[in-house]
Amino acid sequence: MTFLFNSDARRGAVFADAFAKELPDLPFEMDGATVDPDTVRYLITWTVPDNLARYRNLEILFSIGAGVDQFRFDAVPATVKIVRMVEEGIVRMMQEYVTLAVLALHRNLPGYLAQQRAGQWRDIPQPQAGSRRTGVLGLGQLGQAVLDRLKPFGFPLAGWSRSPRQIESVSCHHGKAGLEKMLAASDILVCLLPLTEETRGFLNADLFAKLPEGAALVHTGRGPQLDHQALVAALDSSHLSAAMIDVTDPEPLPAGHTFWSHPKIVMTPHVASVTQPATAAQAVIDNIKRHRAGLDPIGLVDRSRGY
Amino acid sequence: MTFLFNSDARRGAVFADAFAKELPDLPFEMDGATVDPDTVRYLITWTVPDNLARYRNLEILFSIGAGVDQFRFDAVPATVKIVRMVEEGIVRMMQEYVTLAVLALHRNLPGYLAQQRAGQWRDIPQPQAGSRRTGVLGLGQLGQAVLDRLKPFGFPLAGWSRSPRQIESVSCHHGKAGLEKMLAASDILVCLLPLTEETRGFLNADLFAKLPEGAALVHTGRGPQLDHQALVAALDSSHLSAAMIDVTDPEPLPAGHTFWSHPKIVMTPHVASVTQPATAAQAVIDNIKRHRAGLDPIGLVDRSRGY
Repeated sequence: MTFLFNSDARRGAVFADAFAKELPDLPFEMDGATVDPDTVRYLITWTVPDNLARYRNLEILFSIGAGVDQFRFDAVPATVKIVRMVEEGIVRMMQEYVTLAVLALHRNLPGYLAQQRAGQWRDIPQPQAGSRRTGVLGLGQLGQAVLDRLKPFGFPLAGWSRSPRQIESVSCHHGKAGLEKMLAASDILVCLLPLTEETRGFLNADLFAKLPEGAALVHTGRGPQLDHQALVAALDSSHLSAAMIDVTDPEPLPAGHTFWSHPKIVMTPHVASVTQPATAAQAVIDNIKRHRAGLDPIGLVDRSRGY
Repeated sequence: MTFLFNSDARRGAVFADAFAKELPDLPFEMDGATVDPDTVRYLITWTVPDNLARYRNLEILFSIGAGVDQFRFDAVPATVKIVRMVEEGIVRMMQEYVTLAVLALHRNLPGYLAQQRAGQWRDIPQPQAGSRRTGVLGLGQLGQAVLDRLKPFGFPLAGWSRSPRQIESVSCHHGKAGLEKMLAASDILVCLLPLTEETRGFLNADLFAKLPEGAALVHTGRGPQLDHQALVAALDSSHLSAAMIDVTDPEPLPAGHTFWSHPKIVMTPHVASVTQPATAAQAVIDNIKRHRAGLDPIGLVDRSRGY
């Protein structure tokens, strides 16, 4: 019975230490070429390896990242549990990034950056937080954690998810009708949705048209959710005021792409939140212990939902 | 007995409404040219008018802003109380701005902005919040309120003030020895000091040399506290990594000044926090009621300290 680690060696070393301490009975391997495939019960990886079928006793396939959209589910036998990465390091980084992005858009940072480039000293009209309605798409662990950090600033907060949720001090919406209602009342919209067939192309011209005049976008979901051209058109017509974008399609963003030089876009290269080795190793160890005790792992993917 | 409002008309209208409701017995005037000077008991203004002596029955001189460094104290008779603006709108805006600035520096935003300009998609090594020590210069109402917002992110927090303070979950330092200790352990340094003779030129080459390699600066105090050339030198030598600067000397920052185009500086034009008319009017009304009841107004300036 072996745990196979298929990711970068730096993270692997942190995992190996943690496993040696907490699961000394479970052999930890980092080389798929030398491991006896029949012994592999657990595999952690970013993408599904082509030779997955050789691990015929595999019980759990762990994603090294928060999403599982990079997995082709049909390449994974139905008996294998697929598990997303749910760990506090990812959550903390996303709280930081989204709070930074919402405050940056609230305080007109893209406008001040443009003025700095032009050498202009001029204040931009500043609404108070109490009138800056902020809506979050996606109310899973990340969405809820982000809303927690935004609360103290006094933004009126709303959230939208596929199925109904209740979160203190947050107007929760769900379904198609709920989406339209939230969009119409979101001066800042944050996308934290998982990538599924339903959310591909979600941030498009139709959706932008439903936002109030002057709204701003924070995109920390997945690149293929955003229609790049529709965003540029909405910014150029001034229907949207600004955007802070961490994910694109493709990644890396190609040279010469409009996003690099657009004065209303702040771009970061998919760094909002990345798996932190120490906390991630602990989360995986805890999940193996749960699995051994007959419990479902935290972050177990529902293949029919896609996340 | 009259209240004389000497600032912009837009704010004045908000003050006039609030005074009519809460202090209907106190005449409210906005024109120094037509008011009977002998009736003026209260004056709110940004700078001390040249003809202050004509208001020989003046009891309180209110500053319309958080600072009083623009007042020449020797032009104000010793019998007149000088009062800073302490109101929740200023506090909330400063909490937003400093949280934005600390998160921007923590998450390497200046570096990512430079990469965006160059069309580079590359992640920058990211320390975790738990190892990003943040120190705040100035532990008055603003400093304490800012620390409150930073706490949930998990930064190790420290603060420095002239006289000893105790703040939960914050390492508090004071005096000259305390300053050196805090500087040596501040990866991000926030200046929220009032401008006095002691703090003029405070952020200089000596101080920067005491910060750890790679430290970053948030300056939301007053322009004359910062030695511009020393900051540029510290950034250019890479001893400091980046700065977010809201105040300069002079203001506006002149055309062609290095700060406008420096790749490691994010500049905003003294907009971190401005008096909000509604909450400011209430704060002044409350202070007049306190004064009438024989209590000291909130924000009463100690002329010997300078704030």
